[in-house]
Amino acid sequence: MLTVFGSVALDTTRTPFEVRERVMGGAATYASLAASFFSPVSLIGVIGNDFPNSYYTLLEKRLNLEGLVRHNNKKTFFYDSSFDYDLSHRTTNLTELNVLEDFEPVVPKEYVDSKYLYLANNDPDQNIKIISKFKNPQLIVCDTIEYWIENKKASVISMMKKTHGVVINDQEARLLCNSSNLIKCGRQLLSYGPKFVVIKKGEHGVLFFYDDVIIPIPGYPLETVVDPTGAGDSFAGGFMGYLIANKKEDTFNDTQLLKDSILMGSVMGTFAIESFGTDKLFEITLSDILNRFELYKKMLSV
Amino acid sequence: MLTVFGSVALDTTRTPFEVRERVMGGAATYASLAASFFSPVSLIGVIGNDFPNSYYTLLEKRLNLEGLVRHNNKKTFFYDSSFDYDLSHRTTNLTELNVLEDFEPVVPKEYVDSKYLYLANNDPDQNIKIISKFKNPQLIVCDTIEYWIENKKASVISMMKKTHGVVINDQEARLLCNSSNLIKCGRQLLSYGPKFVVIKKGEHGVLFFYDDVIIPIPGYPLETVVDPTGAGDSFAGGFMGYLIANKKEDTFNDTQLLKDSILMGSVMGTFAIESFGTDKLFEITLSDILNRFELYKKMLSV
Repeated sequence: MLTVFGSVALDTTRTPFEVRERVMGGAATYASLAASFFSPVSLIGVIGNDFPNSYYTLLEKRLNLEGLVRHNNKKTFFYDSSFDYDLSHRTTNLTELNVLEDFEPVVPKEYVDSKYLYLANNDPDQNIKIISKFKNPQLIVCDTIEYWIENKKASVISMMKKTHGVVINDQEARLLCNSSNLIKCGRQLLSYGPKFVVIKKGEHGVLFFYDDVIIPIPGYPLETVVDPTGAGDSFAGGFMGYLIANKKEDTFNDTQLLKDSILMGSVMGTFAIESFGTDKLFEITLSDILNRFELYKKMLSV
Repeated sequence: MLTVFGSVALDTTRTPFEVRERVMGGAATYASLAASFFSPVSLIGVIGNDFPNSYYTLLEKRLNLEGLVRHNNKKTFFYDSSFDYDLSHRTTNLTELNVLEDFEPVVPKEYVDSKYLYLANNDPDQNIKIISKFKNPQLIVCDTIEYWIENKKASVISMMKKTHGVVINDQEARLLCNSSNLIKCGRQLLSYGPKFVVIKKGEHGVLFFYDDVIIPIPGYPLETVVDPTGAGDSFAGGFMGYLIANKKEDTFNDTQLLKDSILMGSVMGTFAIESFGTDKLFEITLSDILNRFELYKKMLSV
């Protein structure tokens, strides 16, 4: 079982073409939904009293929500942002932490045997603490964001030491490693302890670092982008889900499988951004996913 | 034989780490040198009375210079630019057209049978005119730059109509096609007439468009960049040279060969930027090139 710990949000997203208010969002939501096509997923997170029942019902059909706490006196984490004309730059209009402000995550009993953990861009100290609640996790992967790198850099590095894999975007990698060259960043991140590092470059794909191996993987060429929110989180979820579903043993040193899992992560990222919020992740079928995955692999065959 | 038409320059290049004055540069210089590892190359261009003999001697050993005119009363095209700390943004300090100002290129008799033409980022009307001087070219590939797109957009499109392939960078493609989505740009460029389009994205690799096929190819992961000047031109030269050297017939519809040629173009681009100016293109051997090419192919095998 995969446990995902991270934010569940209500997002207001504004593009020059459309505005959608209070759609379901959050790093853990995207990652969980993307992973759920391949593996059972248990969520740890918190929502407030304004989280629509209709959203909860949707999640409930796909995920184990035992670990999703509902706070009756506070509101759900809310994020309002705008994209520019080419949908490549996001401006934050408003961030209301609400329920996240003093959230102390609890790991339900039925989760503690989870062998696989994905820790989204949470407070790194919280991520470290939560790892210790699991009995014998075989694969722990984490992400982080600029805010924690700037405010808790040492904790971010300590967290990475405790994981098997780091999934991080290019700007965050540069900031954390204080280098503009992503190859140098990847090597440096590996030196912090994880077995593998995936640097996400948005539409340009990813750089994958594993031992001495560096593998550049281009993005899937997508013509229609509606809302870029959640691409990276869906990538992480697709990656984890595919990796877990197709592993042969629990050592995760199969380079080919790691690479295929990255391709599947990219595929899930592309679906996520074809509609607003998580809409597309509820519309697609496993067959849609596998078709795109095969097409992608065909494109990349050299 | 491959004929390359374009600028030969003296470049002053400033990075935060080093300044080099009046090194040999120019789009045609980089492209010709990169191609010369794979095919005989004839250059068409112009230099002034300040072009060092030592540079001329270097070029002479690698290229047919019958079409390189030396102007005795003017200076060589000069370009002074600075890179920022992460070597990703260039600022132009000074552009002196000098000999390029009223240059009317002449195609030497011994060039007119050239079957392969690479037309660098010259005035598109000049590129169109020069095509007509060749007897029966089988493969014509062109590049362009922002300046011509802004000032002679119709000519740029007319030029593309007359070519088999367009090699263009991402910003230029967006500007010409008035779209931020590079997949849309690629399709639009194909609609102008060429059989294939290569959109260069710097370190992020290229997007290759051919009929209904779109192939994303990631960049070769390079840890040490010294001077990014000439990457795109060396890409184009390496691409043309490899394509010509390995073609089975003159129709150029072999997708695998086009793809391999793109990989070789990328390899030549990476060598170019490992030293200042064209230095590295004089240092490397064919064996260095083939080693990196094989390593790259191995990285990309899915």
